[in-house]
Amino acid sequence: LPAPANAALDNLVVVLVRPRNPLNIGAAARAMTNFGAHRLRLVNSYAPAFREARSAVGAADVLKQAEEFRTVAEAVSDCALVVGTTAIRKRVLQQAVRRLETESGGAIRDHLRAGPVALLFGSEKIGLTNQDFSHCHWLLNIPTHAKNISMNLGQSVAVCLYEIARSAPSAPPSQAAANEGTASGSEPRATAGDTELISALLLEALHKSGYVKPGNDAMCEKKVRGLVLRFNLKALDATVLLGMVRQIIWKLRQTEKKRDGD
Amino acid sequence: LPAPANAALDNLVVVLVRPRNPLNIGAAARAMTNFGAHRLRLVNSYAPAFREARSAVGAADVLKQAEEFRTVAEAVSDCALVVGTTAIRKRVLQQAVRRLETESGGAIRDHLRAGPVALLFGSEKIGLTNQDFSHCHWLLNIPTHAKNISMNLGQSVAVCLYEIARSAPSAPPSQAAANEGTASGSEPRATAGDTELISALLLEALHKSGYVKPGNDAMCEKKVRGLVLRFNLKALDATVLLGMVRQIIWKLRQTEKKRDGD
Repeated sequence: LPAPANAALDNLVVVLVRPRNPLNIGAAARAMTNFGAHRLRLVNSYAPAFREARSAVGAADVLKQAEEFRTVAEAVSDCALVVGTTAIRKRVLQQAVRRLETESGGAIRDHLRAGPVALLFGSEKIGLTNQDFSHCHWLLNIPTHAKNISMNLGQSVAVCLYEIARSAPSAPPSQAAANEGTASGSEPRATAGDTELISALLLEALHKSGYVKPGNDAMCEKKVRGLVLRFNLKALDATVLLGMVRQIIWKLRQTEKKRDGD
Repeated sequence: LPAPANAALDNLVVVLVRPRNPLNIGAAARAMTNFGAHRLRLVNSYAPAFREARSAVGAADVLKQAEEFRTVAEAVSDCALVVGTTAIRKRVLQQAVRRLETESGGAIRDHLRAGPVALLFGSEKIGLTNQDFSHCHWLLNIPTHAKNISMNLGQSVAVCLYEIARSAPSAPPSQAAANEGTASGSEPRATAGDTELISALLLEALHKSGYVKPGNDAMCEKKVRGLVLRFNLKALDATVLLGMVRQIIWKLRQTEKKRDGD
C-alpha cells in the first residue's frame, strides 16, 4: 500500500523541458515511481522516440502515460503552482529562488493538497531558459557544492521528489502558504492556463493602446507574464480580471474598426 | 568556495559493492561531487575498467582517485561508523534499519565530525547481502513507494548525500523565504496611495469600456479595489502597472474624442 505521505504526490506533475537523452527520461520516470509520483509530461522532447527510455525499472506505466506538449504554457496550463528548478543560486531573475531543503518541499506539499503542481526540469545541457522561467511562480535550487553545481537530470528529479515526499504534512498548512492564499482548499488558485490567458489578453490591450513599441514585443510579453504571475491570483479573481480585460479589448477593437472605417 | 555545510562530507566514504554498470559508477561519482563528497571506494567491481565510467560530469577527480578493494572489510577498515543502504524496510536483520529522512542524516553527520564514515551501496541487481550487512553498524532505508521500492544506484547515492548534506545546522532562512514568493525581500512594497491610484484608473478604464453598468458604480469600485489590493504589489510592479493602465486609458479617450467629433 502506498504510504499516506506519498499519496500526496498524486498531484505532482513532473515536466521535462527539452530532454535529450532517453536514459534520463527513464531515470526521471523511475525516480517518480520510487516516490509515488506518476504524472510525467515532456515539452518538445528531442527524441520523438522517448518511449525507448531505458533503465526505467518499474516505471513502464509512467512512461506509457507520459504526455507530450509543444510548449511549457500548454504543459502547465492546469497547474495552480508552477515551480522551475535551477542550478543557479544568484542571478538577476524576476522570480524568487528558494533552497530545496529549507523552503520548497513543505510549500509544494501544501499546494499539492489543493491541486496540480508543475515541477519543471530543463534540458541536460542548458537547463531551463529565461523564457521557461517566465512561466514559473518561483524557482527551486538544490544546494549543490560549488565544485560541481550541475546535477544529472534523473538525480535532480530523485532528490526533489525525495524532499517533497519527506517534508511532513505541516498541519495546519503553513502560514506562508496561507498568506499566499494557496493552501486553504476553500479558495482555489488560478491555473497557469488562466494566468497565461490574462497575460495574453493584457498584452493585446497594450498592443492596441500603443504601449508596446515596435521591436519590444518579446520584452513586453515577459514583463506582462511576470507581472500577472506575481498577482498570485485566486481562481475567482482571475475570472473577474479576465472579464475586465476582455471588455477593455472589445472597446479598443471598436476604436480600430472606427479608424478602418474612416 | 565550498559551503561549510558540505565541508563535513570530506569524511564520508562512499563504498559501491559489486557495481556492474560503469554508467552507475559515473553517476554515483557525479552525485558525490554535487554534494561535496570525494572519497569513492569500489569493492569487487564487475568491470575492472570502471574508469570508463561515463555521464560523470565534473567527477573526473573522484573517479581518478577512487580506490579498489577485494572485500567490504578492507574497504571500511578505517571507518568508525559503517552504514549500509537497503530497500528493505522490514526483514529479520541483526541490524537496526533507520529511515533516511528522520533518523540517519543527522546521526551520520555527527559521526563525520569525528572521522571517516562508510556508506555502502549494493549492486544494481541484488543490493547488499547479509554478509555485507554484517559489516554495518546499522542500515539506512530511503522511504520509497510500495509500487517501486528499488532505486537506481546513482539516484540512491544522490538522495542519501543530499540528506546528509541537508541535515546541517540550518543556515538562516534566505530572504526569499521570509518574503514568500517574491523576487527579493528588500524590494519595497507599493504604498496604499499607489494601489488606490491604480484602482481608480482601472475603474476609469472599465467605465470607458462599458464594463461598469449604470447603477453598478459602487459595487465595481469595491470589486476593483479589492482585486488590486490582493495583487499585493511591489512598488516597482505598481509603477509598471500604472503605466499600462494609463496608456490604455489614453487610447480609450482617443475613441471618445473620435466619437465626439463624429
